[in-house]
Amino acid sequence: MAWALWGCSPWLVLLCACAWGHPKPLDQREDVRNCSISPPYLPVTAVNTTAQLTALRQQMHTQNLSAYIIPDTDAHMSEYISKYDQRRAWMTGFTGSAGIAVVTMGKAALWTDSRYWTQAERQMDCNWELHKEVGTTPIVTWLLAEIPVGGHVGFDPFLFSIDSWESYDAALRESDRELVSITINLVDLVWGSERPAVPSEPIYALQEAFTGSTWQEKVSDIRSQMQKRHEAPTAVLLSALDETACEYGYVDAGLFNLRGSDIPYNPFFYSYTLLTDSSIRLFANKSRFNSEALQYLNSGCTGSMCVQLEDYSQVRDSVQAYTSGDVRIWIGTSYTSYGLYEVIPEEKLVADAYSPVMITKAVKNSKEQTLLRASHVRDAVAVIRYLVWLEKNVPKGTVDEFSGAEQLEKFRGEEEFFSGSSFETISASGLNAALAHYSPTKELHRKLSSDEMYLLDSGGQYWDGTTDITRTVHWGTPSAFQKEVYTRVLIGNIDLSRLVFPAATSGRMVEAFARRALWDVGLNYGHGTGHGIGNFLCVHEWPVGFQSNNIAMAKGMFTSIEPGYYQDGEFGIRIEDVVLVVEAQTKYPGTYLTFEVVSLVPYDQNLIDVSLLSPEQLQYLNRYYQTIREKVGPELQRRQLSEELSWLQRHTEPLSARAAPAASWAPLMTVSTLAILGWSV
Amino acid sequence: MAWALWGCSPWLVLLCACAWGHPKPLDQREDVRNCSISPPYLPVTAVNTTAQLTALRQQMHTQNLSAYIIPDTDAHMSEYISKYDQRRAWMTGFTGSAGIAVVTMGKAALWTDSRYWTQAERQMDCNWELHKEVGTTPIVTWLLAEIPVGGHVGFDPFLFSIDSWESYDAALRESDRELVSITINLVDLVWGSERPAVPSEPIYALQEAFTGSTWQEKVSDIRSQMQKRHEAPTAVLLSALDETACEYGYVDAGLFNLRGSDIPYNPFFYSYTLLTDSSIRLFANKSRFNSEALQYLNSGCTGSMCVQLEDYSQVRDSVQAYTSGDVRIWIGTSYTSYGLYEVIPEEKLVADAYSPVMITKAVKNSKEQTLLRASHVRDAVAVIRYLVWLEKNVPKGTVDEFSGAEQLEKFRGEEEFFSGSSFETISASGLNAALAHYSPTKELHRKLSSDEMYLLDSGGQYWDGTTDITRTVHWGTPSAFQKEVYTRVLIGNIDLSRLVFPAATSGRMVEAFARRALWDVGLNYGHGTGHGIGNFLCVHEWPVGFQSNNIAMAKGMFTSIEPGYYQDGEFGIRIEDVVLVVEAQTKYPGTYLTFEVVSLVPYDQNLIDVSLLSPEQLQYLNRYYQTIREKVGPELQRRQLSEELSWLQRHTEPLSARAAPAASWAPLMTVSTLAILGWSV
Repeated sequence: MAWALWGCSPWLVLLCACAWGHPKPLDQREDVRNCSISPPYLPVTAVNTTAQLTALRQQMHTQNLSAYIIPDTDAHMSEYISKYDQRRAWMTGFTGSAGIAVVTMGKAALWTDSRYWTQAERQMDCNWELHKEVGTTPIVTWLLAEIPVGGHVGFDPFLFSIDSWESYDAALRESDRELVSITINLVDLVWGSERPAVPSEPIYALQEAFTGSTWQEKVSDIRSQMQKRHEAPTAVLLSALDETACEYGYVDAGLFNLRGSDIPYNPFFYSYTLLTDSSIRLFANKSRFNSEALQYLNSGCTGSMCVQLEDYSQVRDSVQAYTSGDVRIWIGTSYTSYGLYEVIPEEKLVADAYSPVMITKAVKNSKEQTLLRASHVRDAVAVIRYLVWLEKNVPKGTVDEFSGAEQLEKFRGEEEFFSGSSFETISASGLNAALAHYSPTKELHRKLSSDEMYLLDSGGQYWDGTTDITRTVHWGTPSAFQKEVYTRVLIGNIDLSRLVFPAATSGRMVEAFARRALWDVGLNYGHGTGHGIGNFLCVHEWPVGFQSNNIAMAKGMFTSIEPGYYQDGEFGIRIEDVVLVVEAQTKYPGTYLTFEVVSLVPYDQNLIDVSLLSPEQLQYLNRYYQTIREKVGPELQRRQLSEELSWLQRHTEPLSARAAPAASWAPLMTVSTLAILGWSV
Repeated sequence: MAWALWGCSPWLVLLCACAWGHPKPLDQREDVRNCSISPPYLPVTAVNTTAQLTALRQQMHTQNLSAYIIPDTDAHMSEYISKYDQRRAWMTGFTGSAGIAVVTMGKAALWTDSRYWTQAERQMDCNWELHKEVGTTPIVTWLLAEIPVGGHVGFDPFLFSIDSWESYDAALRESDRELVSITINLVDLVWGSERPAVPSEPIYALQEAFTGSTWQEKVSDIRSQMQKRHEAPTAVLLSALDETACEYGYVDAGLFNLRGSDIPYNPFFYSYTLLTDSSIRLFANKSRFNSEALQYLNSGCTGSMCVQLEDYSQVRDSVQAYTSGDVRIWIGTSYTSYGLYEVIPEEKLVADAYSPVMITKAVKNSKEQTLLRASHVRDAVAVIRYLVWLEKNVPKGTVDEFSGAEQLEKFRGEEEFFSGSSFETISASGLNAALAHYSPTKELHRKLSSDEMYLLDSGGQYWDGTTDITRTVHWGTPSAFQKEVYTRVLIGNIDLSRLVFPAATSGRMVEAFARRALWDVGLNYGHGTGHGIGNFLCVHEWPVGFQSNNIAMAKGMFTSIEPGYYQDGEFGIRIEDVVLVVEAQTKYPGTYLTFEVVSLVPYDQNLIDVSLLSPEQLQYLNRYYQTIREKVGPELQRRQLSEELSWLQRHTEPLSARAAPAASWAPLMTVSTLAILGWSV
């Protein structure tokens, strides 16, 4: 699943929203607001926000604020947030996942990126200005024009990362305005009884069969890392308030092998942990733990291996109280909120980008690797069943993006240990596939057709592992350009996957290998090349990946590799696999790494232009196909999915070099492989 | 010229120091100290430092210091420093270019990297502990053990970057010790009249023919950038106290197109500039400007385009006085010293990693590009003359590393506009080439031989450009391993040089292309892949290059590309070219860049294993050879260097693919190329 912001132009988002047909200019359309006429035109989808704005301004007046900032995150910066935390959506009417709102006494404004401009024009009333920009700088520039010197700008410190706080604070202070931390969220005060309930479903322990090590082992390991650290931290504060909620899942859900369901697609529950040298303090909603879970956590005792349950809301006060002693608290600055950071005196802080928990979690032990591999075999069965089903049904004209996604979920649901999708399925046909983060809805979707490319980016949460795979297919005759680009994207995937590199190389240093074949002809893609992934946690598991803020690659890490190409208004291509970092066998001795692909679904041969592949790339591809046959074939056989088995055989036929006659080894391999698998040839 | 720290093991440095022969264990050798016996053994090369240590400790006592830190830089963090600034060398006896000393009341210690361990054991007496580590952490750890809680650690803020200050300060403060900034350097107080004189040679203006634009144009450009910046800085402080002295050269020497010779190999003079919206204040030694230079600078008037000359030593007080107004000072934090940073109040600071002067300087205009290209043609003539001379004289056994380097300097000296070497020539035969930054001396050098590889890394300062090129050659029969590795290094050079990449890509993201062919077989090199270079300034011109702290690539930048491989105790290979960032012509339209190689000396065909090259790499190589013929051939002809001309022809014969019979186009191209050049075939 791709995840960075894409450079998607507004008319495309529009096309996307309309699903098909050419859009009218904004001021002639009935589906978006028009605040430039009198009276303003508001579509039926617009939300009247006058009441909540008035109430918020009363709160701001009480607090002596000139402005109040409303971010788009929850207190754990989750990718998907619970309705309980959708403060910005409730204030503005705009429900898009990204966008920051600022309210002054006279104005209200929203900043969001191009993916969401049309949606914002549909959902907001004319109380709100729409600013088509992102980042701190445009917001601060606007604030400086709107509020007087000496003015106070309020914010909820739990919704700000340390970095955001620093950038707002420095810019405002430079211009003699003050950023004021207010721990009671003003939107919550106004929201009152209308606010959805806080998640309260029971928290459960993951069966031991699905965990790599016990929570006691994990706690001991972290404590031993505390002792080794030269600043001698007395505690690690486990929170998760930056890029994603993943580490949160681990830190608490993960550290204790507990799971909840507070956030869609992610088996987490809201919590913090203060893990000290002599105690374990878990801050969560106590009432959600049944006696079994309490027993599992050694709750009720007082030793260093007993978990003391404290109320979620007490974390800030408790951390502050803890700092009165002769202590040092180790935090990961990349994801600790300013709300906790500001109560720790600087001299008692041991600050790294990532805490030892995050670094340790990044490397999966051999049991975790085995679990993850197993989940990918079953996931491949589901995806292959879906591809076979599509091949039969698309030509009939009975499949659309939404019903397709439902069918896929049905197939995944029949797999063992399945526990829901790992993110909202991107099922996109034709021009929709060129749109960032497009997902069809029951109301708005496009029919699949043999005349168009189809992009499927989806994944499952299984008790043993999280999957995430993208395949792009064409059932008819792709254009030469589509074939060329698909092949160049595939070459990028292959070149990065087969790269041999020194241990501890950072992903950022090698991700260009996934782009080179596109760059060569003046093409590129506007998102990241991959993200960490793991065992039944968030689909985007930091801090592994290919971005500059990811940690160095090490044996045992899992990441996605997902180059793509997007032709505005026409089609989109992405080829994504999950890979495991493994030791490489090199001609001369040395500690070198490479990737082993654990996703096991063939690429679309209909879209591969073999003449663009080098002999090395072709050899690699055929070896991968052989692996798929060896790993998925037996599972299909066991499940008596004979149609899928023969589909797999057809789609993993070895490819021959540069349109030359089939190389002699290829049929040979086919025969021997099938023989190994016990298939009839 | 490679420039990062290399992982060179101690016994190798030893081998290097002995030039050849196997070393004895340290405690049986007469050339190094032995402090573990009583009385200690000191070689004749050791310096008695008791007197200066006693005197320094008196100064420390007066200042109430428990420790004093003596860094290895001058106030401009130059790569080469003047004798006037060699404080650490004078205090310790150790003259290596890298190493930090710390003195407490009872102990004295030096930290340096593996390149210098033997040298330190030879030059230091037993007053000094040698710590075989680098970085702030080991020094702080040692300090914490040696000085009491509450102790003061003194330092000269002009010899500390902001980053160094931050890391020492945070670590010491965390442990209740205090870092104390003392603007009078205590070593200078002790050094007294023994200290070499401050450089005082005249400062001269570069002829207009050799400058890309006038200093007035540069000043106007910087002022316009100040106006565009949203924080509205009123001044840019041009200093240069971090990675290299390059920007210093530009900032002052460079901004005004002035040159001096305060630092070996670099045409700079000590200075700072405070460029405000209404004035230009140049801090330098006034007596060094003659009336011509003063006139050139519009000195003596008071308009915004007049340069006010102020004394170098006044910079800190003047900047501090300037900050009393309603001003904002824009600095580059990567190279401004803590000594200037600490006098600017935070709210009056506009801080970027690099100031606009540095960013602007990185891109050369078309006149500067033309100048630089021209200098490379002449430099190629000198290097080719040297290679021809070596080919004739090495077999006679009359050439050594040092006499070779002298001969090369003689050839360069005959080229127009030559103004000295751009750095100390690395002329290294056999195992010496595996050593980091090895340079031969008159006393200590190795004979060149047809049985060994020879590595030459050298460059010239010409009024129109700075050059830097590395070639590795073998006049006899290289081993299969040597050929393989040389070819893989060459593939790295080729693959990075021919890479097509989007505008504004950072060098860090693509430098792995220079390593992939080595990584493939488990090999690598331990230094950076390239550095900026320009017009008659420092050979390492920041902020261009392939490191994480370099800025993004843009059309008009020059950088070196210099992969290598080093086999401890046996041989070393490096292939370095200077390249210009140019627009790429891509199949599909887009803003893409690639490199054009401006170094014009053929690689050693004797070391190339053609079977390892892909058809694309081979084609690229042959095209490069054709370029060399076209650009250097006519110059050799004009100079009637017929022997060199025929050498060039031989060494640029097109190579044929994978040991197959010569491809038919190759001789064709040769004939036609020679015809174009008017050579007789």
